[in-house]
Amino acid sequence: MNQDDLTAAIRKAKDAREAGKDNADISEAIAEALKLIDRSKVCFVGTNGEEGFPNIKAMFSLKHDGMKKFWFSTNTSSRRVQQVRKDNRTCIYYVDENNFHGLMLVGRIEVLQDMKSRRLLWTEGSEVYYPLGIEDPDYSVLCFTASRARYYHNLKNVTFTIE
Amino acid sequence: MNQDDLTAAIRKAKDAREAGKDNADISEAIAEALKLIDRSKVCFVGTNGEEGFPNIKAMFSLKHDGMKKFWFSTNTSSRRVQQVRKDNRTCIYYVDENNFHGLMLVGRIEVLQDMKSRRLLWTEGSEVYYPLGIEDPDYSVLCFTASRARYYHNLKNVTFTIE
Repeated sequence: MNQDDLTAAIRKAKDAREAGKDNADISEAIAEALKLIDRSKVCFVGTNGEEGFPNIKAMFSLKHDGMKKFWFSTNTSSRRVQQVRKDNRTCIYYVDENNFHGLMLVGRIEVLQDMKSRRLLWTEGSEVYYPLGIEDPDYSVLCFTASRARYYHNLKNVTFTIE
Repeated sequence: MNQDDLTAAIRKAKDAREAGKDNADISEAIAEALKLIDRSKVCFVGTNGEEGFPNIKAMFSLKHDGMKKFWFSTNTSSRRVQQVRKDNRTCIYYVDENNFHGLMLVGRIEVLQDMKSRRLLWTEGSEVYYPLGIEDPDYSVLCFTASRARYYHNLKNVTFTIE
């Protein structure tokens, strides 16, 4: 990053500290976190990869139900699917780089291939990724269910459980 | 994400496939990956968190030496430092959301507190995060050393080792 970006970041952190905003409560954090999810194109999915190393991949944030369930589209043949079949402990992360918000949700992922799940995310043009169409065996839907959340903003982390 | 973003993503993927660009070679991938690192303000750091769940956090991408070493500034009291002291297996991830590039580097992180490392990242305004100044015991430098890379672009993953 360049010095201007860093200076801007430091200025915002200083303003937040001076405004006494480092005591955000949980209900405010939840409202902000939901807005962050809604305006994000992508989120970052963390999995347990080979040899005990964590792995990260950006995925399109296609559909979610509040902060509890999130659905992603992926190739069945992908490394991601192999990994979560072995170990479904995952996290997803949303970020607003300009305002320094970050939301991490920890939970578990299921790999789905039933028609109802396939239809949920299928859209015009999806054949680019799955040439055989909606029933392409290489088309899978990942469903992430969150159990815990950590929201960072104004130099402060707020942690809460997801019911 | 909204339908317009998704349509744009599908169009780019289609264009890439039609242009036969899904066979990027390693040297091209390395050059593109370095450019991606250089223009990124933040990267995403993946660690092994509590109860075997991966964790992700956005961090400022402050300084790097090619694709081998990366330095980050953090609070010694942070959860991140506790985690990497227990298990230093980590990954870092850079993304260009608009052009669908992603770079994941897998490696190990060291927690440094010597003066040379502290000086490397200290800048005007750093006191906002570390009020006691450059010798603040709550100021640590994380040094990540990469061993393997995976670069995604034009619907294709390219994997290589980092010497």
